Amino acid sequence: MQLAMIQDKIVPLDKLDPVYFDRGMLFGDGVYEVVRSYNGRIFALDEHLQRFAKSLAAIAIEGIDTGEIRRRVLRAFEAAGITEAKIYFHITRGSAARSHTWDAELKPNFFMTVTKLPDNSKDKAGGIAVSTHPDWRWKRCDIKSLNLLPNVLARQDAVRKGCTEAILVDENGLITEGAASAFFAIFDSTVQTVPLTANILPSITRNFVLKAAGNIGLKTLEESITVERAGSADEAFIAVTTQDIIPVVRFDEAVIGDGGAGKHTKELMKEFQKFVK
Amino acid sequence: MQLAMIQDKIVPLDKLDPVYFDRGMLFGDGVYEVVRSYNGRIFALDEHLQRFAKSLAAIAIEGIDTGEIRRRVLRAFEAAGITEAKIYFHITRGSAARSHTWDAELKPNFFMTVTKLPDNSKDKAGGIAVSTHPDWRWKRCDIKSLNLLPNVLARQDAVRKGCTEAILVDENGLITEGAASAFFAIFDSTVQTVPLTANILPSITRNFVLKAAGNIGLKTLEESITVERAGSADEAFIAVTTQDIIPVVRFDEAVIGDGGAGKHTKELMKEFQKFVK
Repeated sequence: MQLAMIQDKIVPLDKLDPVYFDRGMLFGDGVYEVVRSYNGRIFALDEHLQRFAKSLAAIAIEGIDTGEIRRRVLRAFEAAGITEAKIYFHITRGSAARSHTWDAELKPNFFMTVTKLPDNSKDKAGGIAVSTHPDWRWKRCDIKSLNLLPNVLARQDAVRKGCTEAILVDENGLITEGAASAFFAIFDSTVQTVPLTANILPSITRNFVLKAAGNIGLKTLEESITVERAGSADEAFIAVTTQDIIPVVRFDEAVIGDGGAGKHTKELMKEFQKFVK
Repeated sequence: MQLAMIQDKIVPLDKLDPVYFDRGMLFGDGVYEVVRSYNGRIFALDEHLQRFAKSLAAIAIEGIDTGEIRRRVLRAFEAAGITEAKIYFHITRGSAARSHTWDAELKPNFFMTVTKLPDNSKDKAGGIAVSTHPDWRWKRCDIKSLNLLPNVLARQDAVRKGCTEAILVDENGLITEGAASAFFAIFDSTVQTVPLTANILPSITRNFVLKAAGNIGLKTLEESITVERAGSADEAFIAVTTQDIIPVVRFDEAVIGDGGAGKHTKELMKEFQKFVK
């Protein structure tokens, strides 16, 4: 008799809940998005749905109606009634007996959570420390996939060092991005970040940051940054959907600026708020 | 109210089965092994448990008693009563609200299946075609993790091209390994395979193949192989736990040898059977 074991309990294979055969679990064979609301309104949902559609196409999960995903997000958000909400959703290729290859008829699985965003006012006011970690991720980080073990290990390493985020560094000593954020450094009045390649996620928050920078008269530069140069930046910050802009005040051993949130960073944070009103 | 949505159904967050918060699903934060039985006896279980322990340690999943895993495998195998069985098991870091970092107290989740091995006599007799695919995997392929999306995409690409396995090729044009197998080429009477590095899984079947080669007087060489050289091999094969040795008779467009299982490959297959008796 074919069977499964969950913890130490034996279950006949045909009685097993299909979630245990979710290819998300067995292979990380799925893609995800995170959106948030500000004061009861979801921010940049369409941009996230567009990126989600690209991720789905990149791994050949077909037949998903993003209009239906949009309706589900709105329905769940309304049902939750949380004004500052974090909305996570993923689609996996479906549930099937473990095999690397998949059948065209497989039906994808959808999963979403709507939760309360944790308070981040302390990080936003005082800034965070970050530490570098080798970028161990795969070569298609432009796809927002569920294969996140390298991100998890890097972030945990940062926390172990008393930091909040890990900044990933490639084999050439160049920064790619944070474990779960985009990285920015400011030199004089120029906001610099890494150009978009297959090595990094096309961050949506990044676009709004660059727009905010333009709005307040800062120059922008999309060019790779070495670890050494980042440590000597006048200011630095990370950008991530759930928190928008968070100042970086320590980079490995280097204190950034005067050790507090930088002047231009604070201006950017203020300007960013105009987008979400 | 915090909530989840599964397909199109809303579920209160606190009523959700913890399996939906399994970090295996959310991050691929777990490691796995596959063992098989030959004629009612599990082959090389201790070697697989040792590798499993190394994978667990490499991603800092702690407190797992591999003796207990061994007992579970034996108990489930006995309960299944399948003589030619495929035994898959994984451990994930546990179930918790989605956060890249984890708490030390988190309890890991164990999952196993015992299923019938499919018949592979046709592939073993006639050999398989393989096609190359860029190796998109992460930089720690020595860890047998659940982050398998690049392997999935490569294997599916092979199948789409009428092949059975994808052979992964790094940026320098060197073969690393198959999407779910080790790759071997034979030149004259030398069996060549890639040296063990962080880029490839320390295959257990590989060790037995190298031992079998020594037993029958073939030379062995652990040295990187270019795509071009592999296509001109006298013989080729892949090695994988569930199928031991499978001859490769086509490599991309190149026919290997006379297009059938090679002489030395057949000798190796015969010698390998002595280990599993």
